This record gives sequence, C-alpha cells and structure tokens, in this order.
Amino acid sequence: MNVITIERKVLAKNDQVAAENRAAFAAHHLFVVNMVSSPGAGKTSLLERSLETLKGSLRVAVVEGDVQTDLDARRVARYGVPAVQIVTHGGCHLEAKLVQDAIATLDLAGLDLLVIENVGNLVCPANYDLGEAMKVVVVSTTEGDDKPLKYPPMFRNAPVLVINKMDLVPYLDADPDVLERHARQINPALTVFRTSCRSGEGIDAWCAWLAAQVTRRP
Amino acid sequence: MNVITIERKVLAKNDQVAAENRAAFAAHHLFVVNMVSSPGAGKTSLLERSLETLKGSLRVAVVEGDVQTDLDARRVARYGVPAVQIVTHGGCHLEAKLVQDAIATLDLAGLDLLVIENVGNLVCPANYDLGEAMKVVVVSTTEGDDKPLKYPPMFRNAPVLVINKMDLVPYLDADPDVLERHARQINPALTVFRTSCRSGEGIDAWCAWLAAQVTRRP
Repeated sequence: MNVITIERKVLAKNDQVAAENRAAFAAHHLFVVNMVSSPGAGKTSLLERSLETLKGSLRVAVVEGDVQTDLDARRVARYGVPAVQIVTHGGCHLEAKLVQDAIATLDLAGLDLLVIENVGNLVCPANYDLGEAMKVVVVSTTEGDDKPLKYPPMFRNAPVLVINKMDLVPYLDADPDVLERHARQINPALTVFRTSCRSGEGIDAWCAWLAAQVTRRP
Repeated sequence: MNVITIERKVLAKNDQVAAENRAAFAAHHLFVVNMVSSPGAGKTSLLERSLETLKGSLRVAVVEGDVQTDLDARRVARYGVPAVQIVTHGGCHLEAKLVQDAIATLDLAGLDLLVIENVGNLVCPANYDLGEAMKVVVVSTTEGDDKPLKYPPMFRNAPVLVINKMDLVPYLDADPDVLERHARQINPALTVFRTSCRSGEGIDAWCAWLAAQVTRRP
C-alpha cells in the first residue's frame, strides 16, 4: 500500500507542476499538444509532415521525449524549428517537471504552437498531465484494430485520435473502420483523423485542425 | 529519493518471486519464454502461428498479459492449449507474483513450453524478471529501424529478437537490415529471426528453435 500512496504523491506533485506549465502556456496564448502512441506509430513522421505544411503560417516549437538518443530532435530541427530533446534514461513517460525544464530554454512569447512528443508507450503517459491543452493519440493501422479495447485509459484521456499509415491498409487484415469504432466505444466524443505520411493523405485536414485550435486560443 | 528506494524494494520482492517461479519451472523441466514488444507488433499472431506449427510435437500453455480485456487468451485458446489471462487494470507490465498466481491454475508437469505474452510496452517490462528462461523481443518492420537505439534496455535484456511483419517491407521506408544492425549494436549476441504471420516466412525456423530449446532443457 505504501507504493500506491507514493504514486499518488508523485501524481499530485506532477499535477501541480503541470498547472504551472499550463499557466505559462496561457500567459503566452500558446496551444500545446501532447502526442502519445506506441513506439513506431509514426509520431515523428507526422510531426515532420506537419512542420512542412505549417511552415510560414504558424510559429512552432517541439519538445521531444525519448528513453534514449536525440534522434527525434535532430529530425525535427531540420525543419528550422526550435527543438528540445528530453532523454528519460529508462523512464517510460514524460513528467511535467521535465517539460518545465525544457520550455525554460524556449522563447514561448514567440510561438503559436508547441508540440510535445511523448515517449512511445501506450500505457504510462496516459496518467501524466504535462500542462498541455490536449493529448493526441496516434495509432498505426499496422498495430491492429483492437488497441483501444486493450489500452483504454489512453483513448479515454485523449480527445483526438490520428489513425496513421493509411497507405498500408491494402496489405493488412486490420480495418481502420473497426479501429475507429473500438476507439469511439471507449471515447464517443473523439475527433478522428486518418493520415499517411507517405502518400500525404489527411495531412492537410490534420494541419488545418491544428491551425484552427491556434486561432481559437484565448 | 523515497520513490527510488521503494522502486528498489518492489524490484527485490519481484526478483524473489521470480526465483520461486524459476524453481517451479525447473522442477518440471519446463522451458519458459517471456514475449515482449510494442503494442501491435504481432506477439499474439506469432503465437497463434507457432501453436499451429508446434501442435502434436510440444505441449504448450500460454499466459496472456493485458491492460484490459481477455481478447488474447480467447484467441490463443482456440488452438486447444491451456490459456490464462492476466488483466493488469492499467498496470504497464507483468510482475512475477501475477505469473505465480496464473501458473497455479496450470498443470506444469504436463507441459513442455510455457509462453508468457507480456503487456505491449517496449519500456517497463524490460526490468521485471518473471522467472522465464529468456525474454524474446518482437519488433514489427513497420515500427521503423531505430527502435533498438531509442529503447535499449529491452534489447539488452532479451537474447532473442524476432523481426515480424516481413511481408510489409516492400511498402516501407524502414529497412530490417538496419534494424538488425542497430539491435546488434545494443546486444551483439542476439539471435535474430525474421517472420511474417501472413506469408509464413520464418515461422518454421522460429518454431524449430523453440523446439530445440525444449529438447536442451536440463
């Protein structure tokens, strides 16, 4: 029972720092998304496509979270945006304090959109608020259509679902319609996008939605 | 620092129960693998294909670990093998005690091979010994070729790598040779199989290896 108590304390402390992050983002009218997924669902590729599309219209920065390496921050930095890499050294999710330290190195006043790419993990990041406006869960069509049922907390806590790698559907047994139906069983209010970073399918709609969130910010 | 201390205590307690599991497996000359991967890498499909192939030659049972649902145990039970489902209710990995409770429902003396399918998570299960002979890490070709570098503990702790969904390689930018090279950078002693549950590629070699481990058991 000790462990549960301490886990609660960890979450309470995290929520407090997340509230500080949220206040800092609000002070700069900054829209912040926390992208979560399994490893290899294509978060970084989706981000690269989005940076390409949004170039010139939105001022974007990226915080990358990984267990090891700064590969993703390097990929993203090629698009000319500020990119900060957090290495968790074995940690299975980002925490608000890590994000607080990362954004201290960014000029928030000069930004419209901050994308936080979490560690690839469909379980642990579900419970950690980073101060974001919302979580966006990315699922690859190749992961099968049963993931929302098997990992419900993530789909309950993310108001937006991106079904990625749509170009591979012809070669799979999994069905994105079934995946979407399972996700809506867990979270009926989901906003759903279907994308392919290879073919470009759905990237414009996803980026238009992102841009609209920025416009609507208080 | 409290949290770290308690985490150490949790791991020490887990290791103690894992040792009890390992002794029980040894007493029955049972070969036990702990299959780990990202969500949707194809562990259950690989297991289904293996059960089909090994039918009549090995007596197999399966312990399934999932955050939610008993979908996987139902899939596996169709192959006429004993299958126990552990639902972690949000927990991000299996622990030795959960496996101990699960195997109490099995007749270990009547088995040659026990497959434990862990929760889909490339981070947390790396640190939890369940009493298995070895971890087998399954990676789908669709996850990209950089996963060993980004999630090194799992590849360090698993002596066997299965690169699955080989049938999709023609439609991907990721290269299984690069994936394998990255994995060997982390763990040079890796045994590597390349499989496709759709085409059947590599299933025989993987199953022959499993059968050989059973024969070699003390």
